[in-house]
Amino acid sequence: MSDMAGGEEAAADGSATRWGRRAWELLERVRARAPLVQCITNFVSMDLMANALLAAGASPAMVHSLREIDDFTPRADALCVNIGTLSDGWLPSMRAAAAAAARSSRPWILDPVAVSASEFRMEACLGLVALWPTVIRGNPSEIIALSSACRVRDSKGVDSFHESSDAVESAKSLAQSSGAIVAVSGATDFITDGQIVVAAQNGVAMMQKITATGCAVTALIAAFVAVESSNPLEATSCALSIFGLAGELGMEMANGPASLRVHMIDSLHGLHEHTVASRVKISLVS
Amino acid sequence: MSDMAGGEEAAADGSATRWGRRAWELLERVRARAPLVQCITNFVSMDLMANALLAAGASPAMVHSLREIDDFTPRADALCVNIGTLSDGWLPSMRAAAAAAARSSRPWILDPVAVSASEFRMEACLGLVALWPTVIRGNPSEIIALSSACRVRDSKGVDSFHESSDAVESAKSLAQSSGAIVAVSGATDFITDGQIVVAAQNGVAMMQKITATGCAVTALIAAFVAVESSNPLEATSCALSIFGLAGELGMEMANGPASLRVHMIDSLHGLHEHTVASRVKISLVS
Amino acid sequence: MSDMAGGEEAAADGSATRWGRRAWELLERVRARAPLVQCITNFVSMDLMANALLAAGASPAMVHSLREIDDFTPRADALCVNIGTLSDGWLPSMRAAAAAAARSSRPWILDPVAVSASEFRMEACLGLVALWPTVIRGNPSEIIALSSACRVRDSKGVDSFHESSDAVESAKSLAQSSGAIVAVSGATDFITDGQIVVAAQNGVAMMQKITATGCAVTALIAAFVAVESSNPLEATSCALSIFGLAGELGMEMANGPASLRVHMIDSLHGLHEHTVASRVKISLVS
Repeated sequence: MSDMAGGEEAAADGSATRWGRRAWELLERVRARAPLVQCITNFVSMDLMANALLAAGASPAMVHSLREIDDFTPRADALCVNIGTLSDGWLPSMRAAAAAAARSSRPWILDPVAVSASEFRMEACLGLVALWPTVIRGNPSEIIALSSACRVRDSKGVDSFHESSDAVESAKSLAQSSGAIVAVSGATDFITDGQIVVAAQNGVAMMQKITATGCAVTALIAAFVAVESSNPLEATSCALSIFGLAGELGMEMANGPASLRVHMIDSLHGLHEHTVASRVKISLVS
Repeated sequence: MSDMAGGEEAAADGSATRWGRRAWELLERVRARAPLVQCITNFVSMDLMANALLAAGASPAMVHSLREIDDFTPRADALCVNIGTLSDGWLPSMRAAAAAAARSSRPWILDPVAVSASEFRMEACLGLVALWPTVIRGNPSEIIALSSACRVRDSKGVDSFHESSDAVESAKSLAQSSGAIVAVSGATDFITDGQIVVAAQNGVAMMQKITATGCAVTALIAAFVAVESSNPLEATSCALSIFGLAGELGMEMANGPASLRVHMIDSLHGLHEHTVASRVKISLVS
Repeated sequence: MSDMAGGEEAAADGSATRWGRRAWELLERVRARAPLVQCITNFVSMDLMANALLAAGASPAMVHSLREIDDFTPRADALCVNIGTLSDGWLPSMRAAAAAAARSSRPWILDPVAVSASEFRMEACLGLVALWPTVIRGNPSEIIALSSACRVRDSKGVDSFHESSDAVESAKSLAQSSGAIVAVSGATDFITDGQIVVAAQNGVAMMQKITATGCAVTALIAAFVAVESSNPLEATSCALSIFGLAGELGMEMANGPASLRVHMIDSLHGLHEHTVASRVKISLVS
């Protein structure tokens, strides 16, 4: 496990500065390398996702045709798959791209938007989870639903167990069964590899009033993991805090959700070392 | 018919305050209940539509796959169908969702964007109108075209009549033939159930320079009708005025259409009781 | 060739004012005639493209269904085809619309986004180039790749030649082989008919941090060519400078890419004669 999250619990416990420096290091790496992030995502999120990636210094590519996966996905530095506006037509591309990313040892990130909205969506997600995502990020209800469904599937549907009332426990369970880092977004974001749990506490409530902020941060995670693939837990934690910090800075200038969106992206683009190092709030929970 | 629009003409004639209190009441209800509004809409409008719904306090869900209609639509509080980027692939979903909404006694709203742009679009709209939309909202040319086509269809195409030169008369005719509340957007919005005509006069001209404002207000109507399904005429009138009022407030801070869009959504999110009660301009026309 | 670009080199060389007056003339014409621009474009760009067209005074129509091409395309004043999120489903519509535009003697503009990302995309572009686009606009790598592929095709793939290290030479070659005006975007935009080369030097670097600015300016070119179809080289040059100038004005108020986007569109909407006439920077290169 990582030095910071695993071996140096004392530092992780007390010192935001240490995680702040780490987050800054990864942001600088994204800016320097401009990782190419392929996004197969919902229609609602495309604009904000592309602009958030650009503002962070990454290079977005919305490429979803099945005809292009073989040529394109192996050249991308990371893949972001988001099922927000899932359809029969797009699912094969998602599967093919996830498989291609896995074959090319490229990280790929899954956002199981509204996974419990339909049988179709849940089945699609379970199929995608089986393709070894590097990270899964969702809100509490999505992670609880997906984690629960994975356990049912693992037990061939005959197991009887208590529904977890705790998204963190669900996240740990999902991380263990899927092999992915699992992130649960909320007032506090929790990130786990199934053993360690890290908390990221940046962000403001009004970000939830902007459509696709969750989708955008998942893409940002892809960019961060692309430049630190050996430690996706830390990369995910840093991406979540960086995005939340951009929201905090944006909120200082905002009069509502639409101006927050503008100032948040501006702030993400303009983040300075001192601000990141001093204001990133990440800590080891367990 | 409603007390306000029907039985209390004197009050409706003279008193913006009464309608203002009604509009505030419904906005508060949207904020309190956060109705889930399923949107099957064009690609251009998705971002603004979702953000407008969120700013008003509703909960948007862009779900369009035919595979999800049966599971999802009965759980939505209202459905918004918009044909702006219509295609063969999406039309069956629109039809299935409209039918599911009708079966579940959920309100559904139709936005017949550019209905006269092609035979395909007109045929699609006529099929959707037959599925009992609760409200139809369009601009004058859309309502005139659709109303005229409905009359031709009703008369098996052999009737000869004069084209209405008046969108309000077309709206009344369409309301009568479809059973829907019909709203015609413009400098003044007109809303009718086929008998009564209500005018809503909020808004600014520059809103037309922002793409998808019409689409967004149709979705807002869906949210308002979701919390006042017993009186869709009043809910529609209030939604139109509330959105127009947000545009007026936004215009006070705007330098052009893009900043108007930002300030309009911010204003919609931040609307206060006094502003709504005193500035909503709705009146009974006939 | 045009008087300005061809016969009056001295004026074009020395005088920004002359081109400035020309750009203003065309912008006024767009505002007066509100040309209907059909856009078959990628999902990411739809919002910004539609809003840029509206801000310039044009009338956008995102119509992509194959079922609507025959009815709609002949009524549009220009067509913009952008392959950013190309798929098997949309390609036939792009082809049919391009052919319909050519048949109707309507200008159509091609944006070969990421043409070298896959074989599928390159083949699609080569097929579209064969349908006589009026203008092709891309970034240097897109134009170099497409120009090179066209030469290979012309020579049946057996020619051996040196890859051009210069996008301008590639643009000239592509213009000659395709019959289109070719524009290469960059810090300086170059526009050529295969003989003459014009440079447009407005714009700011941060525009590249906003997704779909390239797509949006291609649509603006379509609007300008729609009102000056007899001289697409000048119309293209003026559209590129006008959009870049809007970016320059927006930059004076921006704090980052998201606020630049807002102020850029506001500025495009509010452009005055004096600003355009004095700040447009277009010159004849050769």
